[in-house]
Amino acid sequence: MGDVREIRLCILGFGHVTQRFCELVRDREGVLAREHGVRFLVTAVGTGTHGSVVDRAGRTPAQVLAQFRADGDRFPDDERDGTDLIGASGADVLVESTPLAHGGRLAITHIDAAFDAGLDVVTVNKGPIAWDYRRLRTRADGEGRRLRHEGVTMDGCPVYNLAEFCLPGDRIIGFRGVLNSTSNYVLDAMAEGASQQEAIAEAIDAGFAETDPSYDLEGHDAAAKVAALANVLLDADITPDAISRDSIAGLTQSDVAQVLSYGRRLRLIGEAHRDEDGEVSAQVSLTPVRSQDPMYWVTGTSSCLVLETELAGTVEIVERDGLLTQTAYAIYADLLTIARAL
Amino acid sequence: MGDVREIRLCILGFGHVTQRFCELVRDREGVLAREHGVRFLVTAVGTGTHGSVVDRAGRTPAQVLAQFRADGDRFPDDERDGTDLIGASGADVLVESTPLAHGGRLAITHIDAAFDAGLDVVTVNKGPIAWDYRRLRTRADGEGRRLRHEGVTMDGCPVYNLAEFCLPGDRIIGFRGVLNSTSNYVLDAMAEGASQQEAIAEAIDAGFAETDPSYDLEGHDAAAKVAALANVLLDADITPDAISRDSIAGLTQSDVAQVLSYGRRLRLIGEAHRDEDGEVSAQVSLTPVRSQDPMYWVTGTSSCLVLETELAGTVEIVERDGLLTQTAYAIYADLLTIARAL
Repeated sequence: MGDVREIRLCILGFGHVTQRFCELVRDREGVLAREHGVRFLVTAVGTGTHGSVVDRAGRTPAQVLAQFRADGDRFPDDERDGTDLIGASGADVLVESTPLAHGGRLAITHIDAAFDAGLDVVTVNKGPIAWDYRRLRTRADGEGRRLRHEGVTMDGCPVYNLAEFCLPGDRIIGFRGVLNSTSNYVLDAMAEGASQQEAIAEAIDAGFAETDPSYDLEGHDAAAKVAALANVLLDADITPDAISRDSIAGLTQSDVAQVLSYGRRLRLIGEAHRDEDGEVSAQVSLTPVRSQDPMYWVTGTSSCLVLETELAGTVEIVERDGLLTQTAYAIYADLLTIARAL
Repeated sequence: MGDVREIRLCILGFGHVTQRFCELVRDREGVLAREHGVRFLVTAVGTGTHGSVVDRAGRTPAQVLAQFRADGDRFPDDERDGTDLIGASGADVLVESTPLAHGGRLAITHIDAAFDAGLDVVTVNKGPIAWDYRRLRTRADGEGRRLRHEGVTMDGCPVYNLAEFCLPGDRIIGFRGVLNSTSNYVLDAMAEGASQQEAIAEAIDAGFAETDPSYDLEGHDAAAKVAALANVLLDADITPDAISRDSIAGLTQSDVAQVLSYGRRLRLIGEAHRDEDGEVSAQVSLTPVRSQDPMYWVTGTSSCLVLETELAGTVEIVERDGLLTQTAYAIYADLLTIARAL
């Protein structure tokens, strides 16, 4: 593997995840060249409120990160939006990591702009996969573009790649899982006696929850993940808005105590199943589970997905204690999967 | 995908697993042609004591199975051994499914003969992977042959394919798992009050154990699986004989009762870890585990493997209630993975 191929990246969204991704690359430049024959160069970065930069000559992720931090967490330019940056970047791959908002509309615009300009795409923004997967997949396949999204559901834990590469000839019939850490943390804290207010404050303190956790508590995040999984794994064409959804906002101590008295725990379970006609039903529901159920043992930032398949039977995947590095790894892995196919 | 490629198989060992594999193919001939562009034909089958058959024109797995059953579970010819059959078969792929014996020596001979004749190999016999993996892998890579073995450890549940395809750029540092159903069944039956004798009789009745279960109870099977996993996932070069191993043969009711009184269960845990110098330590040890440990919940024919990785963190894979179909699927999946790369 004497030749080292340069892969040029346009990064949109420069929060904790993409910054950690830059660190992963920085710490592995030698391995990437030696073992994978690739070198990642950044030709553009765009952010919502921290400026942007274009450098078609390309900078290493290490350089980009160092400059950003040296300049007080800012890039120099404020003018261009994501679509302009993609066009100007001359990149090979768009790394889409903008914050999720409005059904992923911004990220979807970016991905379309990337395909327009002939770029492959890695997204850790779940919006496009939850709201618009079928159209984007059809477009990518039709135009010979790659669209990878391992990080949108269980951080760096293999889910989509597992289904694509490890279950050839098999068919996934359904899945269920605990997919949202914030709501799970709140349920466990309440099971230990906290009020919902206290549990939420704890979750924010521990770094598990946003200052406004309603998106998580009302099941929106879980529904988006269920939609993404159903669209990819079950060939569904649904959006999160079509998924019936329990909220744990407003759950009281006495609700939780009653479940505990039966030796169970409450879990916000996301699930979907395909019937024999190919119809997919999906829901997010607050469910008391027994200790025999793997969902019972999903705590902290862990997540669990149980796949029901026709031939491989029941396969469970658990990510224990997923953190920032795991989500950053999803980008890293997806880029290497693209590099392998180039 | 208008063209359908014929893939010719030489099957050695025609027990339950390969018979079920033939059924899987029989029931999916249309899908295989349409979606995968392949058609499997059997050009030779060899067994230890049920005869053999060579037909270079090729027969469908359905035809082979029907004839075998019509003829009272026999093939016509008794003359040729496996190596001769491989040479005479004109096949593209050897499916190695002979019984494990003598450190897999027979299966290793078959795989070498297959490589000599230019065949790719799918094995569900763990011997070659546990005892001679590094040499066989080096040979396969050097000669451009494929050697696939998903079925040697957790039936059809993705383990080796997961590591190969879903963790690019990551490194597995260690693993631990419950990998042997028979010993696990006996431990659970004893925990419910059975003597070891009674537990073994139960396990045989339930179809979990061989008439002579000592290979399982003494930890040999788990050690072979640990060696296979360590050789492939941790780049070790060890054999099962080098793995320290606890036996549960001779365990008494009072041993089990004592553990139970602490709220734990006994599990025969197989594990291996790589230190910073690349040294691999591996063992099979009888361990009391708490209910928070995923191993606690592995019962019946389930198995569980926890991978510690550098970047994806801790990833757990559980196969729930693996049966014959799952092991047959491992062959099916490995053949499709080979077909995809052809």
